[in-house]
Amino acid sequence: MMVPMANTQSDIIIYDTTLRDGNQAIGLGLSLQDKLEISEKLDALGLHYIEGGWPNPTNEIDTKFYREVKKLNLSAKIAAFGSTKRPHTAVDKDPFLADIIQADAPVATIYGKSWDLHVHDVIRCTEEENLTMIYESVSHLKRYKDEVIFDAEHFFDGYLNNPDYAIKSLQAAQEAGAHCLVLCDTNGGTLPGDFTRIVQAVQQEVSAPLGVHVHNDTGCAEANSIIGAELGATHIQGTINGLGERCGNANLCTIIPALQIKKGYDLISDEQMRSLRETSIYVGEIANAGYNFRAPFVGEAAFSHKAGAHVDGVRKNRKAFEHMSPELVGNKRHFVISDQAGSGTIIEKLTGIRPDIDKKDPLVKRLLNTIKEMEQQGYHFEAADGTFQLLVHKELGDFQDPFIVKGFRVIEDVRCDGHPLSEATIKIVENIKGCEKTVHTAAEGNGPVDALNHALRKAITEIYPELTHMHLEDYKVRVLAGSAGTAAKVRVLIESTDGNDRWGTIGVSGNIIEASWIALVDSIKYKLLKDRNIIRS
Amino acid sequence: MMVPMANTQSDIIIYDTTLRDGNQAIGLGLSLQDKLEISEKLDALGLHYIEGGWPNPTNEIDTKFYREVKKLNLSAKIAAFGSTKRPHTAVDKDPFLADIIQADAPVATIYGKSWDLHVHDVIRCTEEENLTMIYESVSHLKRYKDEVIFDAEHFFDGYLNNPDYAIKSLQAAQEAGAHCLVLCDTNGGTLPGDFTRIVQAVQQEVSAPLGVHVHNDTGCAEANSIIGAELGATHIQGTINGLGERCGNANLCTIIPALQIKKGYDLISDEQMRSLRETSIYVGEIANAGYNFRAPFVGEAAFSHKAGAHVDGVRKNRKAFEHMSPELVGNKRHFVISDQAGSGTIIEKLTGIRPDIDKKDPLVKRLLNTIKEMEQQGYHFEAADGTFQLLVHKELGDFQDPFIVKGFRVIEDVRCDGHPLSEATIKIVENIKGCEKTVHTAAEGNGPVDALNHALRKAITEIYPELTHMHLEDYKVRVLAGSAGTAAKVRVLIESTDGNDRWGTIGVSGNIIEASWIALVDSIKYKLLKDRNIIRS
Repeated sequence: MMVPMANTQSDIIIYDTTLRDGNQAIGLGLSLQDKLEISEKLDALGLHYIEGGWPNPTNEIDTKFYREVKKLNLSAKIAAFGSTKRPHTAVDKDPFLADIIQADAPVATIYGKSWDLHVHDVIRCTEEENLTMIYESVSHLKRYKDEVIFDAEHFFDGYLNNPDYAIKSLQAAQEAGAHCLVLCDTNGGTLPGDFTRIVQAVQQEVSAPLGVHVHNDTGCAEANSIIGAELGATHIQGTINGLGERCGNANLCTIIPALQIKKGYDLISDEQMRSLRETSIYVGEIANAGYNFRAPFVGEAAFSHKAGAHVDGVRKNRKAFEHMSPELVGNKRHFVISDQAGSGTIIEKLTGIRPDIDKKDPLVKRLLNTIKEMEQQGYHFEAADGTFQLLVHKELGDFQDPFIVKGFRVIEDVRCDGHPLSEATIKIVENIKGCEKTVHTAAEGNGPVDALNHALRKAITEIYPELTHMHLEDYKVRVLAGSAGTAAKVRVLIESTDGNDRWGTIGVSGNIIEASWIALVDSIKYKLLKDRNIIRS
Repeated sequence: MMVPMANTQSDIIIYDTTLRDGNQAIGLGLSLQDKLEISEKLDALGLHYIEGGWPNPTNEIDTKFYREVKKLNLSAKIAAFGSTKRPHTAVDKDPFLADIIQADAPVATIYGKSWDLHVHDVIRCTEEENLTMIYESVSHLKRYKDEVIFDAEHFFDGYLNNPDYAIKSLQAAQEAGAHCLVLCDTNGGTLPGDFTRIVQAVQQEVSAPLGVHVHNDTGCAEANSIIGAELGATHIQGTINGLGERCGNANLCTIIPALQIKKGYDLISDEQMRSLRETSIYVGEIANAGYNFRAPFVGEAAFSHKAGAHVDGVRKNRKAFEHMSPELVGNKRHFVISDQAGSGTIIEKLTGIRPDIDKKDPLVKRLLNTIKEMEQQGYHFEAADGTFQLLVHKELGDFQDPFIVKGFRVIEDVRCDGHPLSEATIKIVENIKGCEKTVHTAAEGNGPVDALNHALRKAITEIYPELTHMHLEDYKVRVLAGSAGTAAKVRVLIESTDGNDRWGTIGVSGNIIEASWIALVDSIKYKLLKDRNIIRS
């Protein structure tokens, strides 16, 4: 591919549509407060434009947004979104345009039809009337706004079907003075070859700055956006975490570091770049849209090494298995303990605790043996770093068990005519500054694990008040098929948090309750270990 | 981008590495049984090559795999993976090569170093020695295998750093008779512009068929693979669902339909293509690796329409907001805010039982309401067809409950000095040919679910001896995060089999034991329903 660079590499602006197109993702429904909080975060990240929503009488949140966001005095330019006017309506009488004008935003972004199929079948007017709608809508808005951006909806499908007409739709917006012509792959079906060819063809026909807006229906949203930038598009639209209708929009958390770190474009400051992972997590939390563990650049797995050969390579030279430094986007390198790991992984995990440790140190050998043995039983440390850290510190001898479990009992009572009752009884021996004390207590809960959790906390929270800030976040169970002749085992993974950190612990047993209990006890022990500042990895 | 097509479009073969590189994903640990089951599914999908693993003495599963997979008589070619020989070792004395030769597979795939940085810093030998290692390893394996495929590890990074050396590494493999030279973007950091340029440059220097193997660290794995195919690469490597180290490998569930449906390449049959979504879900379940709701082509959201304008557009013309027909990959269109959502699915499910049923039949409406209500509570019927069938037949009135549960109690007793005891007590009312009989009984088990299972069978197996042939195959638990102010719920999925069929049932409750019980009772009821030959879907 011949890649003409943008005139200067700082020409490119990032246009965020998380609040508008992102919010069309299935399961999303951002409140006004969500939108304002995300706007501040996007602004802090240094994004140049924020599209807030589609103001109209049926959309109260988006209408209010423009009034409220103004009070935040953001550096980013705020854009109000909408469509061209209706067919056969005078521009100054059109309600769509009036809504955009009323929104107190310096930028108007309107979409118009570039695909003749949509002109005929969806808005149902003549091709000529559609071009008039585009021209008049842009011209009219220009009188009220600093900038009018034209989103050429379905541009790529339109171009494939009728290139002349698609180009005419752009030219209509250009003649009316549009600030930027955005080529939208609204259905997300365009592959990189066609995308490249079409952008290059458009560059022969129009002179206004070009933008791209790509959906991910063929998994090419980020690649096509990057291709667009490399071909000379100076306006890139996308959303945080790729949120958006169907398979999502182009993910800015991928595009920004790809263009800036890997290709040298100047988009945001280095400090802002280091907040990228945090921004991704923040938006995921606010939108309650989950978190992609494996996301490029910002996901927890993005710089995690598991295969023994990879761990060994990274130890010899970071570049060997990392395409860039994780710190640049605020991420971290992780070495994952797995059956594919060798002593190299163990040494990496120990560097924070024993930086001087050598591969031949007996501790490394002992730990590796313990881990391999536990793996034989069904343990799996990849998502259970808490359990791993406890093992290490027990081997090192610098962590004394705060309590020993003598036994427990759980009773589940379910009647067809009432709520289920879960009751747990536990007996533990506490170890307080060398003195032993037996505690025998009981509690109820919402299910057996919850009841055990309550009983355990009841027994020890008085001595360890820091446990009140800790809670279980996730609980996963997997049955491990037994090999011929052996019984199946159950693997329980618990994720806990105290607001500052998250940690995973694991339990394996033939009995789900016992496996849960093992993971639960370790989750609490890890919290106590961590707060004694022993953990430094 | 200039896109020369492959000589004939059917030249391209798909090489699956889910079992090897996919299994390096964080959190994955496929058992031998998992690998064999997935192999059958990959073969049914029509994939051409299956890379099973890396056979060596420390990897028992992968070593056994090649013996066991042979018994399945698959059409796909099975490949054994490994590396070139060690520096300064004779080929016939090298343990790496011996392991590959021993594995009973017709194809050997070996990786070798193309990046001089790796030669110097990781394997630490001279550049010349590395070229000898590649040449001799390929030559040696050629004597034992039908095909030897050369994976040029880190090819793109190597080419950027030292193009001459990277090309020499390919030429060494070519001269030794490698069947295919696979350009690997092992670190996944290559953007489409560089990717295109490098593939084109390689094509000037070697004549052997080219392949591509791409990781997703910059979000371009699928796009780069598609670009590779369009430039003429005839061997595409990837994994189901993009499973793999860090951000994953190129996702075959995206690449296959993109190339075949959108660009006309002939890769698998239309019928196989229609099983793509099912394959994606199946592998996700077996690997317990979750499911990407928003995955291109195969995700549930891929053809779901939410925005009013989109729903309206799709109703007027399907093409208006869909880049292809969802049915081609076994997916479905969903209207998220429409009352019509789901009724199509229900009608489809009912065709086997009531082929004449109409959309307006009150049964459809009732079932839809029941299902929507259950989904609100956290039910999910994708993997629980047993539960769905029970609902249908209860609504149809042609299945009478064989028993009613009055209540149960489970006691778990765990002592530090002994084995855990699980005891379940149940009380049910049996319905035998219209006569009611109360049964109150108890049993022990290996964990609470097992104890409940034993007690239930003890109570009813005398009347329903067919239950002796049925057992639970898998048991999965997921915690569903509660929305603000509500408690978390637990979703239990049970998979059962009687040797002929497998079926899934589901239970949801705030209490894991109750959720398990619901799924367990349904699994038994479904078996009784099925054996009465009512199920025909």
